[in-house]
Amino acid sequence: MKASQFFISTLKEAPAEAEIISHQLMMRAGLIKRIGSGIYTYMPMGLRSVRKVEQIVREEMNKAGAIELLMPAVQPAELWQESGRWEQYGPELLRFKDRHARDFVVGPTHEEVITDLVRRDFKSYKQLPVNFYQVQAKFRDEIRPRFGVMRGREFIMKDAYSFDKDEAGMKVSYDKMFNAYMTIFNRLGLNFRAVAADNGSIGGTGSHEFHVIAETGEDDIVYNLNSDYAANIEAAEAVALVSERAEPQQTLEKQHTPNMGKCELVAEFLNIPLVKHLKSVVLAAEQVNENGEAVTQIVLVLLRADHQLNEVKLSKLPGLSTTRMATEDDIMQAFNTKPGFIGPVHPAQKVLVVADKTVANMSDFVCGANEVDYHFTGVNWGRDLPEPDLVADVRNVVAGDPAPDGNGTVDICRGIEVGHVFQLGTKYSEAMKATFLDENGKPQPFVMGCYGIGVTRILGAAIEQNFDAKGILWPAAIAPFEVVICPVGADKNEQVRYETNNLYNDLLKEGVDVILDDRGERPGSMFADWELIGVPHRVTIGDRGLKEDGMVEYRGRRDEAATKLLPEDVAAHVLAQLKAS
Amino acid sequence: MKASQFFISTLKEAPAEAEIISHQLMMRAGLIKRIGSGIYTYMPMGLRSVRKVEQIVREEMNKAGAIELLMPAVQPAELWQESGRWEQYGPELLRFKDRHARDFVVGPTHEEVITDLVRRDFKSYKQLPVNFYQVQAKFRDEIRPRFGVMRGREFIMKDAYSFDKDEAGMKVSYDKMFNAYMTIFNRLGLNFRAVAADNGSIGGTGSHEFHVIAETGEDDIVYNLNSDYAANIEAAEAVALVSERAEPQQTLEKQHTPNMGKCELVAEFLNIPLVKHLKSVVLAAEQVNENGEAVTQIVLVLLRADHQLNEVKLSKLPGLSTTRMATEDDIMQAFNTKPGFIGPVHPAQKVLVVADKTVANMSDFVCGANEVDYHFTGVNWGRDLPEPDLVADVRNVVAGDPAPDGNGTVDICRGIEVGHVFQLGTKYSEAMKATFLDENGKPQPFVMGCYGIGVTRILGAAIEQNFDAKGILWPAAIAPFEVVICPVGADKNEQVRYETNNLYNDLLKEGVDVILDDRGERPGSMFADWELIGVPHRVTIGDRGLKEDGMVEYRGRRDEAATKLLPEDVAAHVLAQLKAS
Repeated sequence: MKASQFFISTLKEAPAEAEIISHQLMMRAGLIKRIGSGIYTYMPMGLRSVRKVEQIVREEMNKAGAIELLMPAVQPAELWQESGRWEQYGPELLRFKDRHARDFVVGPTHEEVITDLVRRDFKSYKQLPVNFYQVQAKFRDEIRPRFGVMRGREFIMKDAYSFDKDEAGMKVSYDKMFNAYMTIFNRLGLNFRAVAADNGSIGGTGSHEFHVIAETGEDDIVYNLNSDYAANIEAAEAVALVSERAEPQQTLEKQHTPNMGKCELVAEFLNIPLVKHLKSVVLAAEQVNENGEAVTQIVLVLLRADHQLNEVKLSKLPGLSTTRMATEDDIMQAFNTKPGFIGPVHPAQKVLVVADKTVANMSDFVCGANEVDYHFTGVNWGRDLPEPDLVADVRNVVAGDPAPDGNGTVDICRGIEVGHVFQLGTKYSEAMKATFLDENGKPQPFVMGCYGIGVTRILGAAIEQNFDAKGILWPAAIAPFEVVICPVGADKNEQVRYETNNLYNDLLKEGVDVILDDRGERPGSMFADWELIGVPHRVTIGDRGLKEDGMVEYRGRRDEAATKLLPEDVAAHVLAQLKAS
Repeated sequence: MKASQFFISTLKEAPAEAEIISHQLMMRAGLIKRIGSGIYTYMPMGLRSVRKVEQIVREEMNKAGAIELLMPAVQPAELWQESGRWEQYGPELLRFKDRHARDFVVGPTHEEVITDLVRRDFKSYKQLPVNFYQVQAKFRDEIRPRFGVMRGREFIMKDAYSFDKDEAGMKVSYDKMFNAYMTIFNRLGLNFRAVAADNGSIGGTGSHEFHVIAETGEDDIVYNLNSDYAANIEAAEAVALVSERAEPQQTLEKQHTPNMGKCELVAEFLNIPLVKHLKSVVLAAEQVNENGEAVTQIVLVLLRADHQLNEVKLSKLPGLSTTRMATEDDIMQAFNTKPGFIGPVHPAQKVLVVADKTVANMSDFVCGANEVDYHFTGVNWGRDLPEPDLVADVRNVVAGDPAPDGNGTVDICRGIEVGHVFQLGTKYSEAMKATFLDENGKPQPFVMGCYGIGVTRILGAAIEQNFDAKGILWPAAIAPFEVVICPVGADKNEQVRYETNNLYNDLLKEGVDVILDDRGERPGSMFADWELIGVPHRVTIGDRGLKEDGMVEYRGRRDEAATKLLPEDVAAHVLAQLKAS
């Protein structure tokens, strides 16, 4: 490709709305242009990277036995009514009426369409398993689109759906996809982690997210540097930090703790380490009692004072799927005190006490005394108060926690979710009566998995992970071009033109994705453009170099300095660098 | 590809709603599945052909200097309000409000988005010309979707937009696209014609349509077998069939023609050839007079009796852009008679007389006498009635007409429109104030062209042109697979398995797009599947053939019979056939 026949448009400054580095650099490098809120045009330069991601995804999906098709973006509402998502899905779902007043959606995902397709065409277990995928523009009406392609409204996604005759088969399909994803993100050249994830609203029985590790990530990832273990903090198992409960050593005493409504203040005042204190979180759960009446259950969640509540874990406990923060009135009624002095010892009313696993093994601990300006010290389960109603893992993991796989401790980093594999089970097939005949001729619901990759999001994530002050540092596999040739003084030096064309043609012959910058820009602005755009390899063919020592310059985008080479050696050098990258 | 790892689903019968052969065959061959009215999934088999079309289109667009990008499907209404199409476009345009109640469209085309993009990035004539294209799913809410992918609501289109500094530059860009389209449709292996077209509602100054020739086409194409001349019947020039007006030979006579309201009856009754008769078409045009008042102008269009009115041509005459059929009242008032006996001689009121070019040169003709049951014979312009107010080409061409290029006569066939190139001019750039600075530093509107190809429609058109009783006859370039290998008796014959795998691997090594049918189907149903799907080349490796004479069979999809070959010769034979096709 010659730059004069391509479209390059760089900006010195990023527009004000670009808050994060990938958004700023994608706009500055001219990879995308904003058309509306969360809606972008992929400019020629950006589209090249999109296509490279798509190509790697397709190759690995095909290798893993998935079959590509293309479903329509527009879907009849009837299918969504069957699955129940017509009601469940919020305003992110673009719904519209056609000219005949029939309801449709612009699909944010395609579980319904593929389930409908498979139920009509797959009648027997002999036809299973099957896995269909597509690469397609999706639309989700995000309430606050931002961060460029990271949280856009229209975006390109690869979505795959597997259908198996049973749970065991589904797990095999799931593992194939998991492995394909590992290969894909490795080939993309990204530092990533596959992390155990919470299933979220899509439903199902197991899932992993694939996160690109980047400081600016929106998710906290718990990982073990010594093993493959990694999990989203929402799902990461937090083990008990006290392995078993010690015998009480202290007596229960009420301490005056004036105006000390925070554990840290109480700990300092009483000179007792924070890890001996309990934090009380009061929630209200709307439940239905034995008589079928709606009742509000007050829930007291007890955490070690240095820990944080994990609401996702809490929501999985029986009866606690939906909770809200308790009001001051709720608290006054249940504990006869104010927030800051609440504790599990003799509340005013019977409440449901949920103790984190660590808390359940603590002894001689400190907690609120249910009396303003007072705390108890030397509190012990059984002796001073009943055992908790529930003991469960309800806290966020913190760095330094023992790893759940028993292998040292965990660390926490931030990640950007770029892929997700789900074990859907029979959620959709049961709702949509999608069945096949099993070995005994009996109808059975398909056991499904679904597998998504955010194709355009990968561009943003790759940049968040790979940039410097000058611009993007593309991984070689997804750079818009692999190599750029920058001639300097070509207008007045025949040899510059000769060596430039020679190298360009040699690299083209070798199948290298090379761009020749024949725009005639001044060297400074030309180099700045390519550093901003982030092409990994650059060759400068300058009239001065050729005159002085007959040399041209190679420079990798991450190199500290250029390497001087004879013109006849440069093609081989570039090819060797490409091979190594 | 092995069939067992692919998805093949054929039907014996097409669904009832499939009215035309391409729709029937695409459904039966499992290329598409219907999801809703005019909305289809491209199944793996169909998607392969779609991708092959896309690939050829991309290659030729790139060669012609067009640059690929990808605009969003969802577009802000503001852009459509600027261009005026928000009001002009009918219910085919999918409009919706997002969650913040802002108006959007799902783009049926992208003139607005690309014009907005170019006006923001292109400031100088030095940056021109430029031509951007994309390949994308579009949505048009057709009132009556039908014919499968031929008139669907969601479809894949390649749309390109060129921007030039002046008319001459735009014509160069247009010609490049025209030539690229010629190459594309030739490479696709289709019998097609580039035809001069009417511009339709998109506006602009010149356009060509690309039609695949097929009996079932919706458009009449006028073409010259002896030259490149071709035009849509809406636009095809009809020359005067009488080169100059002869001197009157007859006197005007009023003839009693009882109950003969049709020219054919009058011609037979009077024993005067039909080509001597005029047909009168009465229309009403809503016009504005010199005082700015709305007035209804009655228009009498005169055609030779064997000709048909061309409304598109008529609508381009001054004051006649919008006309309607006259009512019986209009006619009674203007002609004091009933339809069937109307003529240009002494109407009751002054009417606008528009004579087709042929009519203007006729003499001694027959026409209605503006009196029920009477016609005139021996009528002559000037002598018996004033010269017509307007002489113009207002008729449809008929087969056998002299070609407008002077080269013999024209014929008429039916075509399916699969591509369209438009000279848009400054329609959008003026409406949207999209300007650049010219050589003198003055702002000028971009001069635009736009160029569309109906990617998915091409599949339907290719099938309408290429099918037989057994199924599809794909052109080699866009067949889902080039070659199918059908082993027979592989389960019980080691040699069948050996030769099959040998050939399969040999063809793969040569880069042939081959599918090996390892499903274990019975031969009859296996052959029927591949004839229906229309793979152009088939090799059958049968245990009987190998045992009897050591031969395997090659058969082209259009061949009358199979060719017997030694297993060691078959790969070379297939490669030769592929080269020849």
